[in-house]
Amino acid sequence: MTDMTALDALFATMPPVVAMQIRASHFDGERLQLEAPLSANLNDKGCAFGGSLVSVMTLAGWGRVVLGLEAVGIKAEVYVADSQVRYLAPLFEDLRASASLAAEEDWGVVLNRFRERGRSRVMVDVAMADASGRIVATMSARYAILNGHE
Amino acid sequence: MTDMTALDALFATMPPVVAMQIRASHFDGERLQLEAPLSANLNDKGCAFGGSLVSVMTLAGWGRVVLGLEAVGIKAEVYVADSQVRYLAPLFEDLRASASLAAEEDWGVVLNRFRERGRSRVMVDVAMADASGRIVATMSARYAILNGHE
Repeated sequence: MTDMTALDALFATMPPVVAMQIRASHFDGERLQLEAPLSANLNDKGCAFGGSLVSVMTLAGWGRVVLGLEAVGIKAEVYVADSQVRYLAPLFEDLRASASLAAEEDWGVVLNRFRERGRSRVMVDVAMADASGRIVATMSARYAILNGHE
Repeated sequence: MTDMTALDALFATMPPVVAMQIRASHFDGERLQLEAPLSANLNDKGCAFGGSLVSVMTLAGWGRVVLGLEAVGIKAEVYVADSQVRYLAPLFEDLRASASLAAEEDWGVVLNRFRERGRSRVMVDVAMADASGRIVATMSARYAILNGHE
């Protein structure tokens, strides 16, 4: 729970994240879930704005990497490098995204690369589902892990 | 100018877009430019939040398709279907994104497909540049054009 509290404290420093009311709702050590209310994220058609979907997903992936680094005591800056997003269905409910490291990633290798070079990269998969569990959007994104204040 | 006024009126109905203070700033019939102030779009590092970058870019592409349809009197719903985003450099300035149809697209073909089938798709390229003209992020996105209220 302390992990998520720290993440929400970071979110509170970001005006667009505050406006979209994004918060961490679950973390089991592997999978990080973020949530945001539909009311703060509507488009002109009464469903979730595509930019909000991808904001929540991008932040879920970012938070997943940040928590993974904190768990091993590494101080680093995390930036999203690139992403692929698929929007599968309109969402008329609150936004809920779940992020985990991509299946092909080995976190130990990612960390070793960072320790050796002061920089590393990791792929994260994020899915957004409605209350029935149907996937409405997916993101595959690569995050850069950089030493210090670049 | 009436085109951009109509677009800003649509933006005003979307709470996250209002919060990010995104507005249409230029449209020459081919290229649509949107802007948003950095202050409303900061991350924890004092530069632009990745979710805001992609929100502005996604909305620029969406607006470009909406204006293209309005110019020929077609009423349709436009949804983003998928996107690829590259984040090239942190942005410490106001956000400015420029969207145009992808070079390989033929707008006449896109419109004919919509008229025949009631649905169509179009690729849009979006770039975000800083004040010096350096590209800090790019997006290639596909938008679905659907008949009526699907």
